[in-house]
Parts: sequence; C-alpha cells; structure tokens
Amino acid sequence: MSRTLLPVSELPASWYNIAADLPHPPGPPLGPDGNPVSPAALGAVFPMNLIEQEVSQERWIPIPEEVLEILLRYRPTPLHRAKALEAHLKTPARIYFKNESVSPAGSHKVNTAVAQAYYNKMAGMKRVTSETGAGQWGSSIAFACAQFGLECKIYMVRVSFDQKPFRKLMMRTWGAECVASPSEETAAGRAILEQDRSSPGSLGIAISEAVEAAVTDPTGSTRYTLGSVLNHVLLHQTIIGLETQKQLALAGEKKVDTVIGCVGGGSNFAGLAFPFLRDKIAGADMEVLAVEPASCPTLTRGPYAYDHGDVARMTPLLPMHSLGHTFMPPGIHAGGLRYHGMAPLVSRTVVDGLVTPIAIQQLECFAAALAFSRTEGIIPAPESSHAIAQAIRSAVQAREEGKERVIVFNLSGHGLMDLNGYGAYLDGQLADHSLPEEDLRAGLKCLEGHPTPV
Amino acid sequence: MSRTLLPVSELPASWYNIAADLPHPPGPPLGPDGNPVSPAALGAVFPMNLIEQEVSQERWIPIPEEVLEILLRYRPTPLHRAKALEAHLKTPARIYFKNESVSPAGSHKVNTAVAQAYYNKMAGMKRVTSETGAGQWGSSIAFACAQFGLECKIYMVRVSFDQKPFRKLMMRTWGAECVASPSEETAAGRAILEQDRSSPGSLGIAISEAVEAAVTDPTGSTRYTLGSVLNHVLLHQTIIGLETQKQLALAGEKKVDTVIGCVGGGSNFAGLAFPFLRDKIAGADMEVLAVEPASCPTLTRGPYAYDHGDVARMTPLLPMHSLGHTFMPPGIHAGGLRYHGMAPLVSRTVVDGLVTPIAIQQLECFAAALAFSRTEGIIPAPESSHAIAQAIRSAVQAREEGKERVIVFNLSGHGLMDLNGYGAYLDGQLADHSLPEEDLRAGLKCLEGHPTPV
Repeated sequence: MSRTLLPVSELPASWYNIAADLPHPPGPPLGPDGNPVSPAALGAVFPMNLIEQEVSQERWIPIPEEVLEILLRYRPTPLHRAKALEAHLKTPARIYFKNESVSPAGSHKVNTAVAQAYYNKMAGMKRVTSETGAGQWGSSIAFACAQFGLECKIYMVRVSFDQKPFRKLMMRTWGAECVASPSEETAAGRAILEQDRSSPGSLGIAISEAVEAAVTDPTGSTRYTLGSVLNHVLLHQTIIGLETQKQLALAGEKKVDTVIGCVGGGSNFAGLAFPFLRDKIAGADMEVLAVEPASCPTLTRGPYAYDHGDVARMTPLLPMHSLGHTFMPPGIHAGGLRYHGMAPLVSRTVVDGLVTPIAIQQLECFAAALAFSRTEGIIPAPESSHAIAQAIRSAVQAREEGKERVIVFNLSGHGLMDLNGYGAYLDGQLADHSLPEEDLRAGLKCLEGHPTPV
Repeated sequence: MSRTLLPVSELPASWYNIAADLPHPPGPPLGPDGNPVSPAALGAVFPMNLIEQEVSQERWIPIPEEVLEILLRYRPTPLHRAKALEAHLKTPARIYFKNESVSPAGSHKVNTAVAQAYYNKMAGMKRVTSETGAGQWGSSIAFACAQFGLECKIYMVRVSFDQKPFRKLMMRTWGAECVASPSEETAAGRAILEQDRSSPGSLGIAISEAVEAAVTDPTGSTRYTLGSVLNHVLLHQTIIGLETQKQLALAGEKKVDTVIGCVGGGSNFAGLAFPFLRDKIAGADMEVLAVEPASCPTLTRGPYAYDHGDVARMTPLLPMHSLGHTFMPPGIHAGGLRYHGMAPLVSRTVVDGLVTPIAIQQLECFAAALAFSRTEGIIPAPESSHAIAQAIRSAVQAREEGKERVIVFNLSGHGLMDLNGYGAYLDGQLADHSLPEEDLRAGLKCLEGHPTPV
C-alpha cells in the first residue's frame, strides 16, 4: 500500500501550540519605542479572537465545528509512501510524504485560510485584505472568504502576478479582487513605485500594502490576514503533523528519523514539524530539517534579530532570522519562499538547535521535482521541490551508509499553476543564483539599531 | 459529513462490462468493404490484450495488481455531498458528486491511461501514440507511460494547444512529446493543412495522425491509445460508478433518482452511469442524463449511424450517434467535448431509451461552474460544468416540485488548466454558439452511403 488514509473520525479536534513546550519561547513583538506591543494595539490589524490565539500559551486549542466542516472536504489528507521514488533512488530508506496538494487551492495554505476567515466572520468583519507571493496564499484566502461570504482583496507580488496569470484567475473565480504589488492604491505601494517603476515587488512590500488597506478602512470592518510567519498561522497548520503522526503509526512506523519541510515564512514546515518537535523536546532522537532557497537564505545567512515583517515597517519588530526588511530576493520560481524573514517560532527552534536549516539551489530543486513527477506522478510546487531535494539527499545518504531510515517530508502544494517554471527548466533557461555579497550586506545593514532578542 | 471516503479494502477488484447486460449490444465495427473487422485486423493499432477486452462479453473483468497499485495512489476517490450548493439553491434535493479531479493529471482519464499503458507494456510495446483535445487525456497517458517506462507521443488539437499551454508542459514534465495537430509529421495532418493552414484542428484529425504514427512505425513496437469512445476505455472507467454505489450506500442512500455525466466521447459518463444502468436494466426506477454542449450536439442532433471515428477515415465504421466525421465544432472552452461521434455503447443506451441526452449552452455551464466554485470550492473543468449545469437544473426542478431527490453527478476533472476560459467568462467575452444549420447538414452529408446499424 502506497497511501495511508486516516478515517474521518480521526481528524484532529485541536491544534497543537508549540509555545507551551518550547524551552525558550520567543520574545514579544516590539513597537517603534522598543516596548512590547500590547494585544489591544494590534486590534486595528487583526480581530481580537485571532490576537488571543497569537499570544496563547495553551498547548491544545480546539478547532471550531464550522472550520472542521470545511476542512473535512479535503482532510485528512493522504500520507503517501514514495515507493516509486525509493526504487528509482535504490535507497533502503522509507520515504513518506504528506500530500497537502489535495486542497481546493492546491496547498496547505487553505488550512489557516479557513480558520482566519471564520474568526474574522465571527468578529463581525465584512472584508479582509492580504498579500500573496506565488499565489498559493491569495487563492486560499479567496476560497475561504467565498465560504463565509467575506469580501477579499489581494495584493500579489508583481513578479508572480506576471509569471502566474492563472493564480489571479483562481482568485477572481472565487470572487476576490487581485492587484499587482507594488500598486498605486496605497501610500506604501506608491512610495516604492516612485523609486523603481519596474519593481518586481516582494512579500514585504505587498504586506505593507495589505496592512495599510485594512487599517485605513474608515468603516472599521476590514482586517488583514497573513498566510505565514505569525504564531496563530503556524498553529492552524499543525493539523498536518498531527495527522501525519497518526498515519505513520497506522503504516506501522515506530520511529521517524528525518522530518523535512521547505521554509519561506515557515508555516508548512511548522505545520508538519511542530508536533514532531514536541517529541524531540521530550527526548526523541530525530533530525528536523528546514530547507530554504539558496537565493533567499534567511535561516542559513541571516542573523537572529528583531526586524520588521514588511518593507514599509508597518508591522511591529519580530524576533526572527532576517536578511533585513529591505532585502530583495532574486525572482526565482519558488515565489512563496522569497521572504526576508522567518516565523519567530521557527527561528527560535533553529536558535535552540532543534531544527537544522539547509539552503539548496534552484536547479537541484527542479531536478528533484522532475524525478518526483516521473516516479510518484504528482507535479510539485517549486516551493515543495526544496523539501523533495533534501529528501532525495537524505535517501541517497541512507543508501551510501547502508542504513534504513524513515524520512517524512511535506508536499506542501502542487505545481499545476507553476508549469512555466518547469517549461523554463526543461528548455535549459534556468540558472542557479549566486547571491551578490553586497546585496546581503545592504539588507543586513537595515537591522542596525534594532534591539537584540534574548 | 460532506464527504464519503471508501476504505482502500473496498476498492473494486474488477471492472464492469455492460456489454454482458445490454438488451441490444451494438453491432461490430465494419471495414471499408462493409464486413465486420476481425480482432486480428486491429492488431496493428492496439495490442491484442486490449482487443480481447474490446470484444469481451464477460460481465466482470479483473483489474491487474500492477494497475491497482497505481490507482491506489488516488483511488478510491471521494464522494462529496454538495451541501453548500444545496443551501445556495434552497433545494430539498440531496446532490452528490464523485470527485475524479483528485487524480495526478486532474481527471478521470488517468483510470484508463494506467490500464492501457500496463497492457501495452505487457504486450512488449516500447512506445504509444495518442491524440488529445483539452489535454486531459494527453497528460493522463503521459503520466501513465512514465509509470511503466513507455515513450509517449501526443497530437494535441491546435485550438487547445494554443488555449492551454500548461497542459503540454504537464506532458513534457512527465516525459512525453506533444505537437499541435494538424501537424506536418503525418500524411493526414499535411492533407488538412493543405486545405486550411490555420485549421483549429479537431479530435477526429488528431486521431488520424496518432493512428498513422502508430501503424507506420517500422519496428512494430508502437501502438495507438485512445482516451474515450471504445468499449475497453469505457470498461476501465466503470470503477467510478462501482465506487460511487458503495459510497452512496455508506452515506445511507437507498435509492438514486438522477445520474448525470457530461459526454464528449462518452467515457466519464459511462464510467459513472454504466453500473447504475445495470440496476436500471434490472428494473430500478431512475433517470440517467448525458449532457453534451449545444455547439456539438452529437446525441441530440446526430443520427445513429455507422461512421468513422476520425476525419481521415483510418478507423473502422462504428455504430454510433454522429454529426459526421467531417463536422468541425466551434472552438468552445470545453475542448474535451468537441467530438463528432459518441461511444457505441453509450449510443446504444440512448437508442434503447436507457439514457436521456440533453444539450446545454456554454454560458449556462460557466454560470453553473462559478456557482459550484464559490459554494463547493472546487473549480471544475469546463467539460464537467455541463454535468453541474444539469445537476442544478434537476435540483431547481426538485425545489419547484417540492420533492426530495437524490442527484449524483460526475465531477470528471478540475479546471485549473482551463482558467483562461473562466477569465474570458468573467470578462464577459464569451457567447453562446448558434450552430449554423448548413454546418450540421454538411457534416451529416458525409454519412450518406454508410451502412445503417440494426
């Protein structure tokens, strides 16, 4: 059997909050004055019920019935044993992948989109704004808003807006409005366009625009939603790892050696890894690997610092690994991983040695994606291909060492909207990016003067 | 619960062959001399193991282990209760849909692609050829060939080749070669291009090219594969209906009132409907509806006649509803339904009154697709939207009559590769097609002189 399904009755009823178990929880967000931002001060950006989740220390947080009802349309997602890939690699390792590509929008992002739309609806909101990189998040929140009758406005990073026209059509099909960022619609967008009319945009810029659009709504019934980075977003994704643990047990696996996820803002990685980290914190022996693109090496080259989540510095300072909020990553096809920062909770697990970060170049990832497509048959998102590339490295290492190993990675999404990238790769038009040292230095320079996290 | 999963242990172990139960099985294919074509004469086109299935009268045909192993990567597919759509329509009907969009290539076509690739491999073939309309079939056979190490060459109808660039990238990602049809590579393609350099192509033309490319391979190790129409293709799809029957029982439904599928060549419709027709032949009271596009009204406007399956008349004469093998349907977005003929087995069930054909216009189908996307959250293929449009008609009728009804339709595929069509619809650029009577007459004229099926 290559696929382990979980009975519907086994769908997790609560999310897992790793903040309750971390040896050193990350510090609080800081305001411009260097003092912690109070939950109330965030109330113009997020509804209060989500702010409560953001600061919660409860280990288990029940998933509301209305959210479960929609998640059940595609969850529990399957856990696949990648037998064809194993045979191709001639490895003694057993490779499993959690298939989050089966959601309506094609990625794990739907898990938190449904929850965020629900909580906004419960808080009486009429409309949400957000940003999107590759479009996975924008289409997910568009889907979720359609379910709860909320209006939805998306600022999409220009380079992805141009590369991935189908994603914006998905958003429109679900009734959302989608504009390219930087846009002329916000002060933040106009400021960027004045400096560079042909700016490719970045997640940091798009976040500034979406936050501005939410907090400046005079009716007060618009809030901002974010697809990654924040504690409550990572919380909603833990259903991935909780299901995976049950499925591995059903598949007869008693021990997991390697857990792998790709990281941009950190949410799909955290979703799979945090429930496993709970075991690791309790003493289990396993390696947990966070894979980022070499062209945006936040965890491997960025310091652990207080930095803004966006370019226009509208967000509080967050304790995280960062390449600097002004860092502009190259326009690689894994658009969802082009983010200067990293979720504070993920950053903290790296600082504490619970998670090992790895950076991999684009060509190795596309080669891995092609091998995966032709063996397992699912065309992965370029983001997910980073996890696949590392799974292949780990499986090859197991072969060289002659060791059985159990490797689990998160297939965070499918690549059906990303086929232009595959076309460019197949035509030999893609290259690895060598990141200019001066670009890195310039980004890190903007961190000067920020407080240092303890 | 909105979704009924079937335990893996309940996956059907055999396909259902309706030929064993039809009151009047269709007549045999005829050669140019008007005499039945012997199975041996088809040996240059198909491998003998599939020809045996084509003419089999056995009711149940076991599914080989190697085929099951690959089907299990995505089967059993879910059966959804469309509760959000029901609420939107305020209907007392219970609407179910079988979700075939979860396969690697995104449609039901994978079910027969895996089987055909397997049987070709078993017969010692090295390479297969095929045609594709919207690209659903081409990408499915490309996927299947990658699983069995077969080379794959696809002739893709020009209008879809241009409208759906991502489909050809899927085929390439899975290692297949894809060219636009009519092409310069075959005598059949060149003949069309000589008449019309800008021919939009059709399934009939592409079939001619793919058959020619198979039978002219001097090594004799190439065979042709077809994604619909033939008995063995429909046979492989019956796993859809067999699963659905079990799932409806699990969902507590004792009686089904209405079974709906869209029809182009007939395979997804047959896959869902044939197991239900077995019950209807045995006396069960239900309506079974085959929905075709009004711009290619094969069942509702075409006579039941002997006709060729392709434009170049390379195929035998088949007893089927046909608009004439020279009929050129308008370039609607439901490219997979643009076929002049209809599966002989489906045609026979219409002639015998077991199945009722219905033709629906493009705009009603896109409106239905949008309502479905925004309620159920899955963006359907334009082909599948024809089934959705009829399901909505039936559900509205149930509301008007104040009747509970159980409606089941086949969501044959997702529309993630078809978003250009959605964009055109949302921008108000689409129109219904009024089919010129002279086009219909011209097509039917080419049927003159063909034998009449009994």
